[in-house]
Amino acid sequence: MMTPITINPLFQSILALSAADAGQNRLVYTPNWVAAQTQLLQAGVVDDLQARVDQYGNVYLDLPGRLPELPAIATGSHMDTVVNGGALDGLYGIIGGLTAVQRLRHQYGQPKRTLRIIAFSEEEGSRFPATFSGSKYYARRDQVTNLVDATGASFEAARITAVQSLKRIPRVIFQRPDLPATFTELHIEQGPRLIHEHRTIGLVAAIVGQRRFNITVHGVANHAGTTPMVGRIDALTLTTQLLVQLQQAAAQTDPELTYTVGQLAVVPNTANTIPGKVTFSVDFRHPSSTVLDAFETKLTAIVAAANQPQHPVESRRWVNDVPRPLDATMLANNRRIASQLGYHPLTLVSGAGHDSAVMSQVVPTTMLFVPSIGGISHAPTEQTAPDDLTAGVDVLTESLYHQAY
Amino acid sequence: MMTPITINPLFQSILALSAADAGQNRLVYTPNWVAAQTQLLQAGVVDDLQARVDQYGNVYLDLPGRLPELPAIATGSHMDTVVNGGALDGLYGIIGGLTAVQRLRHQYGQPKRTLRIIAFSEEEGSRFPATFSGSKYYARRDQVTNLVDATGASFEAARITAVQSLKRIPRVIFQRPDLPATFTELHIEQGPRLIHEHRTIGLVAAIVGQRRFNITVHGVANHAGTTPMVGRIDALTLTTQLLVQLQQAAAQTDPELTYTVGQLAVVPNTANTIPGKVTFSVDFRHPSSTVLDAFETKLTAIVAAANQPQHPVESRRWVNDVPRPLDATMLANNRRIASQLGYHPLTLVSGAGHDSAVMSQVVPTTMLFVPSIGGISHAPTEQTAPDDLTAGVDVLTESLYHQAY
Repeated sequence: MMTPITINPLFQSILALSAADAGQNRLVYTPNWVAAQTQLLQAGVVDDLQARVDQYGNVYLDLPGRLPELPAIATGSHMDTVVNGGALDGLYGIIGGLTAVQRLRHQYGQPKRTLRIIAFSEEEGSRFPATFSGSKYYARRDQVTNLVDATGASFEAARITAVQSLKRIPRVIFQRPDLPATFTELHIEQGPRLIHEHRTIGLVAAIVGQRRFNITVHGVANHAGTTPMVGRIDALTLTTQLLVQLQQAAAQTDPELTYTVGQLAVVPNTANTIPGKVTFSVDFRHPSSTVLDAFETKLTAIVAAANQPQHPVESRRWVNDVPRPLDATMLANNRRIASQLGYHPLTLVSGAGHDSAVMSQVVPTTMLFVPSIGGISHAPTEQTAPDDLTAGVDVLTESLYHQAY
Repeated sequence: MMTPITINPLFQSILALSAADAGQNRLVYTPNWVAAQTQLLQAGVVDDLQARVDQYGNVYLDLPGRLPELPAIATGSHMDTVVNGGALDGLYGIIGGLTAVQRLRHQYGQPKRTLRIIAFSEEEGSRFPATFSGSKYYARRDQVTNLVDATGASFEAARITAVQSLKRIPRVIFQRPDLPATFTELHIEQGPRLIHEHRTIGLVAAIVGQRRFNITVHGVANHAGTTPMVGRIDALTLTTQLLVQLQQAAAQTDPELTYTVGQLAVVPNTANTIPGKVTFSVDFRHPSSTVLDAFETKLTAIVAAANQPQHPVESRRWVNDVPRPLDATMLANNRRIASQLGYHPLTLVSGAGHDSAVMSQVVPTTMLFVPSIGGISHAPTEQTAPDDLTAGVDVLTESLYHQAY
């Protein structure tokens, strides 16, 4: 009776917007993103759901309950993608939520409590240098302001133009709804653990804390041929020593600590000039603030020891997201539901940030994961077995039923 | 009686072409470069020197000798600069040569042998990805072809347009002269040795051999938060290990071997993605091919050991300039001349490439160095004490006198 989610016409139609690209490109407030939120709003209107859009371009589709004075039971995820992203990151949780609500209405009619599907405007930070702006707006959290993208376009101008277009759709209400009673996010794992453990359903106990530093090493740029080796102050040689020390320190801190140097820039970066400056990023994550503090202390000590008058070394922390435990009661209910449906769910910690980390600060929040083949995400090859996608929607449907009917 | 070279009007007028920039910008065939070669040709015409330009835009100014059937005694350097280069690199040897010839004519009249000042079109490789194209054309060496610059402009189109403009100058002959009997290049050291040894004049015994490799390390790009540390194939972590091994191998090979990793690029180079690929350059130089071979053997072994099916490591050699010994007899003559003028010249090896490395393949060639303050070059802060600039021209003048009169 139910259409498999992978051949859901709305899902396919949103994916087709990026058909000319290697992967999915729905960066916030771009034409592809506006077209996707438009299709979702129109699908909601056609389905006779109450369709709303707010100032940030978050889309809300409500199936009103018999007791409209009670806060809604909400589910959803984000509409935006990274550059050349995959088909499932974010969009799966939106289409999965819509599918679950459609199925519940078809089978049980009007719920007691309002059911709400949310498509947050932006989570990835892939266009502007800030993340979670959609869920932060809905959750009334502070925003980073004065953002511009790589082309110099301002967040505010892009936001206003995009939202104008969404407001014009017939029967769409321009309003930010009240907060819901609970939030459930269905998402792909984006890592290899469910696949390794041969599990279909993941229950997210917490979202890791995450810190990011930029470390800058100053040397003296000079001619690669005429400058003797003795007396050189080579910023890349100094950086190599730092990288070795930081890797060792991370490995000795905690086996669950992830540590990544993903970005590194050499100045002036020509083959025949000794590097005069190197800047690199350090990203580390763990569910415990104590462990994050322990590694930060080591990092600070390593940088301080390397910092010399002749070659200054500086570090600057630019991300400090605290670990976010999700709701234990909702997790226990989902475990029971998944088990009744025949699954053996794995409780795990999310190593990636999610809108649920924002929502958990204001309402009881839970997350359901399905496996990512090869652990791959943020790439066109991102994939989940069709049966696993269906399983995730099945558990979500049951979970929403228990909360709303 | 003699104008100090630093306030020579032609020198100042050519420097003024880049007055709006942080440093000197006379990249080959650009408007600034055309203006500089035009000023030099016009100054030659005014001075009643025979002025010629060839198909590559090399400029030749001849003071004809009484025995015109004998090959000329030539001096000079290159007119082009790096991006935001210094005032002296290349131009000092041209203006210094012109000054020496003017002085000789004023004092001794017509020489026996023709004296020739050469301004080579291009030596730096700072616009197109090839070096020494001017001296290679004069010396009838093979050229790299099909070059384009960073904007996609072709070398050939730029060359033809620029040379058209120089050919139109009245009394300028369009011709490539025969090779000279000898070539003497006056140049700044671009390194710290003369300054460290408190010497005014350097005599260049040889120009180092130089090899450049690009090494590429392949890893697996993945999410920095959701990918456990165990099982990662992080291209930057592998690169760090290679850099440590290569540094150690270079240090153990020979104290005179210079070894520089000047360029390094991470893909995709975002803070929250494990590096999937790193490419870096290795530049190493030494006057002995045996030492260059020894380090190349180590480099190849280190790369081979790091190369694994799961993370391929490749290396590719893209520069292999052999060491070039310069003429021993000319060097001995210059040593005698410098000593008679009261200097204690230092014999040294050039760690940078020069037009003399090309010229030495076809005619006896020598180089004279003057000190670079702080060893700095290829930067706006490139500087030499005025007395040292004058000393270099004095030695050159005497050297040309002994060869041409």
